[in-house]
Amino acid sequence: MNIEMQSHQAEAAPAEEPLSQWLINMPEPPTIWQEFVGYIRTNVLSKKRNKMKKKSSNPVYSYLKSVFPILIWGRQYKLNMFKKDLMAGLTLASLCIPQSIGYANLAGLDPEYGLYTSVVPPLIYSMMGSSRELAIGPVAVVSLLLSSMVSDLQDPVTDPIAYRKIVFTATLGFLVDFLSHAALVGFMAGAAIVIGLQQLKGLFGLSHFTSKTDVVSVLSSVFHSLHHPWQPLNFVIGSSFLIFILLARFLGKRNKKLFWIPAMAPLISVILATLIVYLTNAETRGVKIVKNIKPGFNRPSVNQLEFNGPHLGQVAKIGIICAIIALTEAIAVGRSFATIKGYRLDGNKEMMAMGFSNIAGSLTSCYVATGSFSRTAVNFSAGCETVVSNIVMAITVMVSLEVLTRFLYFTPTAILASIILSALPGLIDISGALHIWKLDKLDFLVLVAAFLGVLFASVEIGLLLAVGISFTRIILSSIRPTVEALGRLSKTDIFGDINQYPMATKTQGLLTLRISSPLLCFANANFIRDRILNSIQKVEEGEDDEQEVKRAKVLQVVILDMSCVMGLDTSGVVALEELHQELASNDTQLVIASPRWRVFHKLKRAKLEEKVKKENIFMTVGEAVDFYVRARTTSHDMC
Amino acid sequence: MNIEMQSHQAEAAPAEEPLSQWLINMPEPPTIWQEFVGYIRTNVLSKKRNKMKKKSSNPVYSYLKSVFPILIWGRQYKLNMFKKDLMAGLTLASLCIPQSIGYANLAGLDPEYGLYTSVVPPLIYSMMGSSRELAIGPVAVVSLLLSSMVSDLQDPVTDPIAYRKIVFTATLGFLVDFLSHAALVGFMAGAAIVIGLQQLKGLFGLSHFTSKTDVVSVLSSVFHSLHHPWQPLNFVIGSSFLIFILLARFLGKRNKKLFWIPAMAPLISVILATLIVYLTNAETRGVKIVKNIKPGFNRPSVNQLEFNGPHLGQVAKIGIICAIIALTEAIAVGRSFATIKGYRLDGNKEMMAMGFSNIAGSLTSCYVATGSFSRTAVNFSAGCETVVSNIVMAITVMVSLEVLTRFLYFTPTAILASIILSALPGLIDISGALHIWKLDKLDFLVLVAAFLGVLFASVEIGLLLAVGISFTRIILSSIRPTVEALGRLSKTDIFGDINQYPMATKTQGLLTLRISSPLLCFANANFIRDRILNSIQKVEEGEDDEQEVKRAKVLQVVILDMSCVMGLDTSGVVALEELHQELASNDTQLVIASPRWRVFHKLKRAKLEEKVKKENIFMTVGEAVDFYVRARTTSHDMC
Repeated sequence: MNIEMQSHQAEAAPAEEPLSQWLINMPEPPTIWQEFVGYIRTNVLSKKRNKMKKKSSNPVYSYLKSVFPILIWGRQYKLNMFKKDLMAGLTLASLCIPQSIGYANLAGLDPEYGLYTSVVPPLIYSMMGSSRELAIGPVAVVSLLLSSMVSDLQDPVTDPIAYRKIVFTATLGFLVDFLSHAALVGFMAGAAIVIGLQQLKGLFGLSHFTSKTDVVSVLSSVFHSLHHPWQPLNFVIGSSFLIFILLARFLGKRNKKLFWIPAMAPLISVILATLIVYLTNAETRGVKIVKNIKPGFNRPSVNQLEFNGPHLGQVAKIGIICAIIALTEAIAVGRSFATIKGYRLDGNKEMMAMGFSNIAGSLTSCYVATGSFSRTAVNFSAGCETVVSNIVMAITVMVSLEVLTRFLYFTPTAILASIILSALPGLIDISGALHIWKLDKLDFLVLVAAFLGVLFASVEIGLLLAVGISFTRIILSSIRPTVEALGRLSKTDIFGDINQYPMATKTQGLLTLRISSPLLCFANANFIRDRILNSIQKVEEGEDDEQEVKRAKVLQVVILDMSCVMGLDTSGVVALEELHQELASNDTQLVIASPRWRVFHKLKRAKLEEKVKKENIFMTVGEAVDFYVRARTTSHDMC
Repeated sequence: MNIEMQSHQAEAAPAEEPLSQWLINMPEPPTIWQEFVGYIRTNVLSKKRNKMKKKSSNPVYSYLKSVFPILIWGRQYKLNMFKKDLMAGLTLASLCIPQSIGYANLAGLDPEYGLYTSVVPPLIYSMMGSSRELAIGPVAVVSLLLSSMVSDLQDPVTDPIAYRKIVFTATLGFLVDFLSHAALVGFMAGAAIVIGLQQLKGLFGLSHFTSKTDVVSVLSSVFHSLHHPWQPLNFVIGSSFLIFILLARFLGKRNKKLFWIPAMAPLISVILATLIVYLTNAETRGVKIVKNIKPGFNRPSVNQLEFNGPHLGQVAKIGIICAIIALTEAIAVGRSFATIKGYRLDGNKEMMAMGFSNIAGSLTSCYVATGSFSRTAVNFSAGCETVVSNIVMAITVMVSLEVLTRFLYFTPTAILASIILSALPGLIDISGALHIWKLDKLDFLVLVAAFLGVLFASVEIGLLLAVGISFTRIILSSIRPTVEALGRLSKTDIFGDINQYPMATKTQGLLTLRISSPLLCFANANFIRDRILNSIQKVEEGEDDEQEVKRAKVLQVVILDMSCVMGLDTSGVVALEELHQELASNDTQLVIASPRWRVFHKLKRAKLEEKVKKENIFMTVGEAVDFYVRARTTSHDMC
């Protein structure tokens, strides 16, 4: 049979010439070094060159424009735009002032630091950022992260366990870059609940409270405190204003034109509550108040930066995690609003803008600033046109830092707790979670892991669980890829998975298999080889039972569709060699169809192309099947 | 344009009907649960059922046959086969006895344990194993592993660093399962050099020697010892017999019929050297000798097994690593010889056989036994027919344990060192390393990392480096997949990567891209989306420069070939949605070609199929291109 086929190949060859010719005469793929150089060139150098080429009028100016988008849109800025931005900026400030104080509280900092953070970073961002709606300032999740991680600070020299934890979480910092959407949904929901529980301290006016963030510690801490005497007045003030804010939001949702009511509600609550406390002297009856807020603008804090000392490693790790979470949040928020308005957010520019905002912030007594979802939504509803609304907000906060701080002395802390509490439901995305459940069960598992991890263990454990499960999935799909049997869709040249297309028909005597892995490598080569051999065995055994007589001719050709395999390593080459040998010993021909560039190149290098024979390598599965069917028909005719 | 296209779709639809129909009416893919159940069924249950079905005469007997292959081939065993096996077995024993003593020495055990290990495990293996040539017994690399890891044993309670090391290497045990061929080549070569250096102790007759295995420690230890007085007689005996053994091997290689000369040379050396020492009383002149070897068969060692105590964790880890290395070696050696003889080794049976051999061994004073490459080669050259040669060898060793042990009292240790040294070059596979270098530079890096790691750090570091680099490669290829532009090969329906096939032509107004990743997921979805958008931008800018006029019509359709994408997660769905939206805002149509089963199912679930519209999902790239080219021609005609 084999010999007959050979002779027919010689006859049939001229007709097939062009196709095989294309495959065999293709150019060499680039080497690893060429690829690396190419990568650097396209990703680092060419961007600048492109920009230079385009507007060659003034290279410095065009470079500046690429770094500071304000130079582009600033030229077209008009008065009626400013009217809208002014309105949006003032609304934003009224929400921002109480939230900033509350978040600073959550982060374990004095209230003025929250306000500082709403001044410098938004100003820098407005010059460098590419989003038009993003409202910059402190946010709840990052504040929580800071407080939970800073409270863990230990001296690594004296405490080896803490030292190990640093190493462990420094790795985490790297992995967090791969937080999936599902992980983020779970993480945010868990963080919202944890933040909410933290607010019980302010709402009940408790003095003793745990520094841990997990549910069990917080609830037991609350439970213990309730045995001590507590001040119900705090709770009355806090919960009544919480109800007021929630009612305002309900109103705003029912009528889109009243968006300013929920936006102003927190500031109104602060003003009312402060006046009530001031007029009734409630601070003497156990109502906790904010007390001193240092008046005045941001002070420089360069002299407070420390770049050595025992905590450097840990601080670096905290910095990395906060930076990544902050950036992820900012880009996610910015992108979702950019999509609504139909423009595209430049991830690299956002990273630059957020980076410089926070560097400038760290030199001027700010803590981590990023894009807040709730305030960005308010900014958007208030009709902001450009990032000028951020500038307006920053200036308003700056003025209030000078003017309002003495007034804020009497602000009850319970009101801050209720403002934070009112912002939390926005972090819990139930419909998003349901959507994920419907789409992908494994992603939902990631979500649940992140949620429960944050809730019952710690922020870091939650993130680690989510990232771990996500990567396990990638690795599993690499080490256990599928090998599908293909069939021809009748009257076409299309070959499809016979499970996906039950109407696809197999050709007798041929087995067509597709390897669905981008790498045929050490981790899966043996598995794939065994899978292929098992499929062959199954075909032979299956047909055995029915037609014992035809046994010798059951399977003559196995066609391997390699169109999805992007690369081989030596283990992959060895597996293919073994497969070829094993089939050859059973008088079965191994045929390779549509090998990719690099794969074909490696087959040549490994001389496998010679062993399998060039005539048995085809451009497409259809071509291969046609060839063998024709060869068989001719040989039958001859018999 | 878009509206026109719509109307043409309605006209063109009937002709396309069958193809889209196939795609849209395909069955639902199995759920995760169904897949899991199916996996269990095919991998755990069906095997037994199949076997039951086939030979239903006696299920117990057929089960026994599947566990003990000896019941199958034993029936056909003939006298002339036994003659060959006897000859091979005796040759094997003559090589095995001195090697076993030497390897026991290397593992830090008394010499009789090496001999015990050559008795029980081969007997068990001969009943359960599926290889015909594999020679079972102690091997060099596993002996080295044992000695290097056991000497590290520390009390985990008092020493936290050691405890961390356990955790670290327990993880390693899992990863070692994925040792690639390249890693193994590097590891073996490194181990050979390390083992060779360890033999310097015996060759020079040194008393003080390091227990570490890295090159630096060993060489400094040798250097220090040379300052002390040492016995040159040891070196004279050792090196002269090493030369004798190497000469014998050279002879054996030149004439294949003299294969027994190198096989007998070690035993002859032992006998000669022992006689010389015995007759000249050389042991009084500083020649180190083996001294007492306990005579008698294997003693039961059940009472010596300890399943608790402070070292349990570490011992478990050592056990796991040794078991995996041993099994990997046995299967690699067995498979390479099985391929020569043209039969197939059953990996599962091998695992069972090696497992039971070593369990039985651990109950009868044996240490780890596996398939030795050098002895298997001798067995093969000696013309063994079945695993009976192992039985012959085991019985011969058993007899010699009773008879020879008193004689071996005077065997110089230097001779054992030279026997081990002579076996080492077989572990260094230079041509294999060259082959890997030619095939795959990254694999070669893995090889070098394993080699240098073993040589300069420790066995564990070497393995960890190799596995780490290998997995980094898989993960990198997952997070940075390629997106290729496709072009049509003239006069065919074949679309190929335009880099691979430079003659492939693009169709004006269409951009065809292929995603070469099996998962469109959190780790690469943003990257792929950005890549696609950049490709589109490049096309538009590129054509911009040349023909400023046609700008509006540069790109109307982007065809995404998803034939290699096996799965989506929610991040992938979001990325596709964003891509669709972004393109739609530029009046460009996103077209999806040849989506796979699960991918299409998820697109349906996510309602993305409705957004992209069913008319824009095609079975193949060719179909999609034809459709849009036809639509455009018709609309041009109408203009």
